Amino acid sequence: MKGTAAIIGGGVIGGAWAARFRLMGWNVRVFDPDPESERKLSEVMANARRSLPGLYEVALPAEGGQTRHATIAETVAGADWAVESVPERLEIKHRVYREIQTAAPGVVIGSSTSGFRPSELQEGAIAPGNILVTHPFNPVYLLPLAELVASPANPAATVDRAAAVLSAIGMHPLRVRKEIDAHIADRFLEAVWREALWLVKDGIATTEEIDDAIRYGFGLRWAQMGLFETYRIAGGEAGMRHFLAQFGPALKWPWTKLMDVPEFDDELVDLIAGQSDAQSGKYSIRELERIRDQNLVGIMRSLKGYAGDPKAGWGAGALLREQDRALRGPAPDLSQPIPTVTRAVPLDWTDYNGHMNEARYAQAFNDASDRLMELIGIDGDYIGSGKGTLFTAETHVRYLNEVNIGDTIAVTTRVLRAEGKKIHLWHEMRVGGALVATGEHMMLHVDLATRKTSDPAPEVAARLAAIAAAHAGPLPEGAGRFVGQPK
Amino acid sequence: MKGTAAIIGGGVIGGAWAARFRLMGWNVRVFDPDPESERKLSEVMANARRSLPGLYEVALPAEGGQTRHATIAETVAGADWAVESVPERLEIKHRVYREIQTAAPGVVIGSSTSGFRPSELQEGAIAPGNILVTHPFNPVYLLPLAELVASPANPAATVDRAAAVLSAIGMHPLRVRKEIDAHIADRFLEAVWREALWLVKDGIATTEEIDDAIRYGFGLRWAQMGLFETYRIAGGEAGMRHFLAQFGPALKWPWTKLMDVPEFDDELVDLIAGQSDAQSGKYSIRELERIRDQNLVGIMRSLKGYAGDPKAGWGAGALLREQDRALRGPAPDLSQPIPTVTRAVPLDWTDYNGHMNEARYAQAFNDASDRLMELIGIDGDYIGSGKGTLFTAETHVRYLNEVNIGDTIAVTTRVLRAEGKKIHLWHEMRVGGALVATGEHMMLHVDLATRKTSDPAPEVAARLAAIAAAHAGPLPEGAGRFVGQPK
Repeated sequence: MKGTAAIIGGGVIGGAWAARFRLMGWNVRVFDPDPESERKLSEVMANARRSLPGLYEVALPAEGGQTRHATIAETVAGADWAVESVPERLEIKHRVYREIQTAAPGVVIGSSTSGFRPSELQEGAIAPGNILVTHPFNPVYLLPLAELVASPANPAATVDRAAAVLSAIGMHPLRVRKEIDAHIADRFLEAVWREALWLVKDGIATTEEIDDAIRYGFGLRWAQMGLFETYRIAGGEAGMRHFLAQFGPALKWPWTKLMDVPEFDDELVDLIAGQSDAQSGKYSIRELERIRDQNLVGIMRSLKGYAGDPKAGWGAGALLREQDRALRGPAPDLSQPIPTVTRAVPLDWTDYNGHMNEARYAQAFNDASDRLMELIGIDGDYIGSGKGTLFTAETHVRYLNEVNIGDTIAVTTRVLRAEGKKIHLWHEMRVGGALVATGEHMMLHVDLATRKTSDPAPEVAARLAAIAAAHAGPLPEGAGRFVGQPK
Repeated sequence: MKGTAAIIGGGVIGGAWAARFRLMGWNVRVFDPDPESERKLSEVMANARRSLPGLYEVALPAEGGQTRHATIAETVAGADWAVESVPERLEIKHRVYREIQTAAPGVVIGSSTSGFRPSELQEGAIAPGNILVTHPFNPVYLLPLAELVASPANPAATVDRAAAVLSAIGMHPLRVRKEIDAHIADRFLEAVWREALWLVKDGIATTEEIDDAIRYGFGLRWAQMGLFETYRIAGGEAGMRHFLAQFGPALKWPWTKLMDVPEFDDELVDLIAGQSDAQSGKYSIRELERIRDQNLVGIMRSLKGYAGDPKAGWGAGALLREQDRALRGPAPDLSQPIPTVTRAVPLDWTDYNGHMNEARYAQAFNDASDRLMELIGIDGDYIGSGKGTLFTAETHVRYLNEVNIGDTIAVTTRVLRAEGKKIHLWHEMRVGGALVATGEHMMLHVDLATRKTSDPAPEVAARLAAIAAAHAGPLPEGAGRFVGQPK
């Protein structure tokens, strides 16, 4: 489904709605009286363009256009959908709805409100049934959650259509069963926020320590399983009821400033345990553990960033990179084929065949080339100071045996030839001493300013020549081979 | 740093401590009277072995050993560190400390307690200064957070040593400034838990809806930036003070059941804004936005799992996969070189040279081969039913031009030859019509039971033969080339 969306209010939230609609092929018409709004919209769109399309394994539809308009009436003319993201003051919202509905009473309006209930928004409206809550989360162009909250005044068909629009732009419409102040997610955010204010005020923790307590711990869990599924696992083999029995008593303890707790009776236990079964009962605890661990490995590894970039790494990923540096042994002997990579095969390197995917062999050989670059002095400083870098021109990989999760792969690298701009490398990958793959790589030294080949700095050239001389000898079996060549 | 750790209590938490210590090269000595403990320990260790080592780009030290002991006294003999993970009852913990300290008064004991303050643990102890809190998070073998909480009775050197032990096993010791019930992270968890109990009890949301509200929204944010850094960005260019001014009034509203809020005065605003500057002030808001987006893309893409596996995908990643399927066009014409991949280059495919990394070309070509497999009928059903699969035997990639983030790459695939077990493919990658890379791949049909080559099913062989006949013609320029061959 595509169409035209009217975006009323083009700030951080409205601008990101506009970007998401456009990248999913919708045209947008924007109203925002802020003289800075054009600049702000284009900055948000630039952020969205670089991040959202790459989430998909297929190309998104052609980008929709954007027009800006001087009045709300003009903005909503002909629109299939309207988004309201004006300040959180009820009288402002009511005025905006009146202007929209005077011009276009039939258009459905999704409000981005964090806190107001739809029935509050609908008070005094020309067409109350066409106003509902579609509460998104920052950054709206990336995060899929949209809380969809209706009141009894909204016809079911209108709510269904709202869900369809949200799905069409890649979101997950979460239908909230009953309206409540702050909907669902913001109630948690507000509870945590209030608890955090106390901790800061009382000098227990700084803002940074609080953020660390979240992102090195439960934040990693919540990115993939939320609260109840996580606790289901924590209950272990005995399951959710066991967890509830174990942590029920804490409700009586001063573990938070939030002391107005519900009665923890059998009825509530049955309700939660039953819902948890419906949600996750199709998996055993062991299966959930493995899914969770797979996800956590993927998340933390993604936070490491590109392995060869010394500046990459954030949060748990930055911590892992520090540990990588600490774990790495002394610089190797360069006169023999050089041990460039020794690592366990991570959970996220497998494919449906249950073994290390073809592309990960390429990644390991790429990491081996990076390590060689670092050892010969083409490191972050060298690249940063504009002396050049290495680009790969050509590679040939032979897959000699399967590699499984948990195997330790060891790559050694031999410099077959290094003359001027060209560096010819030979990687061998082993598991437990057995050769499992070879990689033959032709690298070119390149000037990053001109993107053309150039000679390496003299000290690098000298190091390379010395290594190539030390590695000289008959070509290894398989070098110079083309694809499909008979053995 | 390595040594021997005594693990008192070998359940979900204690067993995972044991696994983490062992994988980091420590020996462990375990006490747990549960007759099932040997099985439980080995199951946790199996989970840890498959997930933790792969987090690192280098091999971990050789795994430490494990012994089990019948008494606490025997367990702690000669230990360099003791971990207490017994049930959350103070009288049990006190009894365990007495047994440990009677046998080994000098060993430092880290308690896994979620709620007790160290001074409560130390009451009546033989050596109170050697007992402190090291509170980990499930799964302990993966999550890096450990809250390190001391009382005035703990010498500074003991606390430093505890931090060093936690760092040595790959954790982030978060030193809590003042002891408080439930430390820091569990206060948030408890607040959210209590709020969640209300929502379930009041019929606002089910456990599954609550989990979705977390994992499609703020859970993804918290995996990388926590609360305050996220809100600093939400404040936009005006920063943290603007955010505080905007959301301060909500403290008066019933957005959570937690209504006992601190006075939101200038002093508190100054404290928070100042701490936030110290934490994140080295980045502009625009920089933080880009870091955040990079992280979110990486996290969500990691949750998609292996692209070619139809069963992969979890949480936000499963949602994206559904959208991939919806976005994919009709099956292509197989009589021409087949469009197998059309996608935007995602943020996590770049390297320090600022362009698409070498290994990602291999990944795109691998995805192209997967798509071809699917089109000729080697899909999930075929592989699952034991008819076989394709393994890659050999690849040759030429990198003809740089590819940048946000570029849309289009891969077409030609079947050069398909006879019996062998399939010879030729991939061409283009950006805006210009050839940027070629990939020549030799694939073998393999029986997954024997892991040996086998003939494809007749219908697959027939489809392949028809495609190869339709694609026949002179070999493309660059096919049959070896690395370093003159042009």
